[in-house]
Amino acid sequence: MSIKIGIYGYGNIAKAAENGINQNSDMELTAIFTRRNPSEIKTASGAPVYAKEEAPRMKDKIDVMLMCGGSVLDLPVESPEMVKHFNIVDSFDTHAKISSHFENVNKAACSSGKTAIISVGWDPGAFSLNRLYASAVLPDGKGYTFWGKGVSQGHSDAVRRIEGVKDAKQYTIPIDAALESVRNGETLEFTPRQMHLRECFIVPEKGANLEEIEKTVKNMPNYFSEYNTTVHFISEEQFNESHSTTSHGGFVLRSGVTGKCGDNRNLIEYSLKLDSNPEFTANVMLCYARAAYRLNKDGCCGCKTVFDVAPYLLYNGTPEDMRAQFL
Amino acid sequence: MSIKIGIYGYGNIAKAAENGINQNSDMELTAIFTRRNPSEIKTASGAPVYAKEEAPRMKDKIDVMLMCGGSVLDLPVESPEMVKHFNIVDSFDTHAKISSHFENVNKAACSSGKTAIISVGWDPGAFSLNRLYASAVLPDGKGYTFWGKGVSQGHSDAVRRIEGVKDAKQYTIPIDAALESVRNGETLEFTPRQMHLRECFIVPEKGANLEEIEKTVKNMPNYFSEYNTTVHFISEEQFNESHSTTSHGGFVLRSGVTGKCGDNRNLIEYSLKLDSNPEFTANVMLCYARAAYRLNKDGCCGCKTVFDVAPYLLYNGTPEDMRAQFL
Repeated sequence: MSIKIGIYGYGNIAKAAENGINQNSDMELTAIFTRRNPSEIKTASGAPVYAKEEAPRMKDKIDVMLMCGGSVLDLPVESPEMVKHFNIVDSFDTHAKISSHFENVNKAACSSGKTAIISVGWDPGAFSLNRLYASAVLPDGKGYTFWGKGVSQGHSDAVRRIEGVKDAKQYTIPIDAALESVRNGETLEFTPRQMHLRECFIVPEKGANLEEIEKTVKNMPNYFSEYNTTVHFISEEQFNESHSTTSHGGFVLRSGVTGKCGDNRNLIEYSLKLDSNPEFTANVMLCYARAAYRLNKDGCCGCKTVFDVAPYLLYNGTPEDMRAQFL
Repeated sequence: MSIKIGIYGYGNIAKAAENGINQNSDMELTAIFTRRNPSEIKTASGAPVYAKEEAPRMKDKIDVMLMCGGSVLDLPVESPEMVKHFNIVDSFDTHAKISSHFENVNKAACSSGKTAIISVGWDPGAFSLNRLYASAVLPDGKGYTFWGKGVSQGHSDAVRRIEGVKDAKQYTIPIDAALESVRNGETLEFTPRQMHLRECFIVPEKGANLEEIEKTVKNMPNYFSEYNTTVHFISEEQFNESHSTTSHGGFVLRSGVTGKCGDNRNLIEYSLKLDSNPEFTANVMLCYARAAYRLNKDGCCGCKTVFDVAPYLLYNGTPEDMRAQFL
């Protein structure tokens, strides 16, 4: 019996999930839901496409709905709504709002008896797990997260909103010297500037004031003013040719001491090097879809995060098989 | 209310745990049990010491017993015995016998209503978790584990059993070229020789045949014959001065593809660099002691491994706090 997956929203992560499902022999894709006109959508998998409004009437045909909308506008509304009908997994990643999103989804899931797992992906997600595990094991220590090299959507959007900018991509780049000092067991307090560089590639509008754009970028509070930022102006052709990458990655480290006088130093490092940010995110979501399905079958409903999910629930195999293969 | 910890056996890991407990504000050390004469033991913490036979009568005073004996002779007998009276955590690491150890402990734990978590440490333990998580996320991939640089107890013992050897330490060393090829996304099949070097430091008995010892080491099946091994003969003074390290570590990697044609490559790497192998192991066991305590309070008994334990159970904090700090 396969786990029947629905995909809600049809953007980058959804398309990645469509492929990812084929890597999981215990899953099948039942339907895709879109806010666009379904008849105009051609899917890679050939799965049927429906309007989002039609989802509820398919509640008996889908075991887990992957919520593939955006964190800003879609998920805060759609996750609490869809969990009335389905077990869901979302990749909600607005850190400051996770707590209220959790409460909203939990309330709806508890009353529908469904299982939701929110904020699933690599950060939040795999990185969060590593921060938690490492803190539990090394309580007397300090944790660090470095991102990149990869495109930050939020920072790219911020640049695109500047007058005279036609298109833009912003790369977040970890600073090697900081990474190395953590690896060497130093437990410094870094400023944002010491941990990451920001590099922008901008296609200006014709006749735009480049000097003004560069100044606006570099002085933008929250986004750029606390960092060393470089700005490159390039043509639309160069932009389309060289900046369509979906690669990303990063590092989670924790340095901690043990022993009677804390004189032994121990380093835990977890890193990701991803050719495809959305494909990796989708694959993480699919494991947690398996977990949501299993948890719900076991009568465990409500809202969960990656912290609440025992690892064995993620894997397509028996406990005996897992112990023999991985323990 | 603190979690009351008992320590069963008083070797390296036990002494490490004795210090580790001080890093966990929700734990206290209640007693240490030894097979030696308790009156001759002086503990670092000042905790009371009892003979092992006295443990059962303290079953109401201890929440979790850390089983700190060896995997070869002690744990196969002691873990199933002690779980009749206590929740336990052990670091059983004889890979080939985990399945039968699991069954034995599970049977005893199920009938006593206690909770056991076995094979806890860094490998098995933290490395196992990373192998499982990475396999679940990247089903279409290949995993690798490299150990070292660090002393392998089993290999050191094997060398010490050779005639003419007074003392010996064996270091397992990962081969950089193999590690780098995995990091570069190659998914080769390695022979043991391609992944690790073995380096032995041997104190020979007076008048021993060094050539013969070296030959015996290098040709020893299972332990050395499949590896490139170097042998150094040193004096007892050099040995005591330079080879008392407890440092160890290693790398768990998984390289996997995603996308319609599997043309995107993604790498997950987890690594440990430990000044103290026993102290890190003890710290991992202490987190799982917390989990065993909580699981048992929730009525969840029987034998578990790290795969069965949801991450939030390991951390000394509330779910809200974890979500805010780590998610």
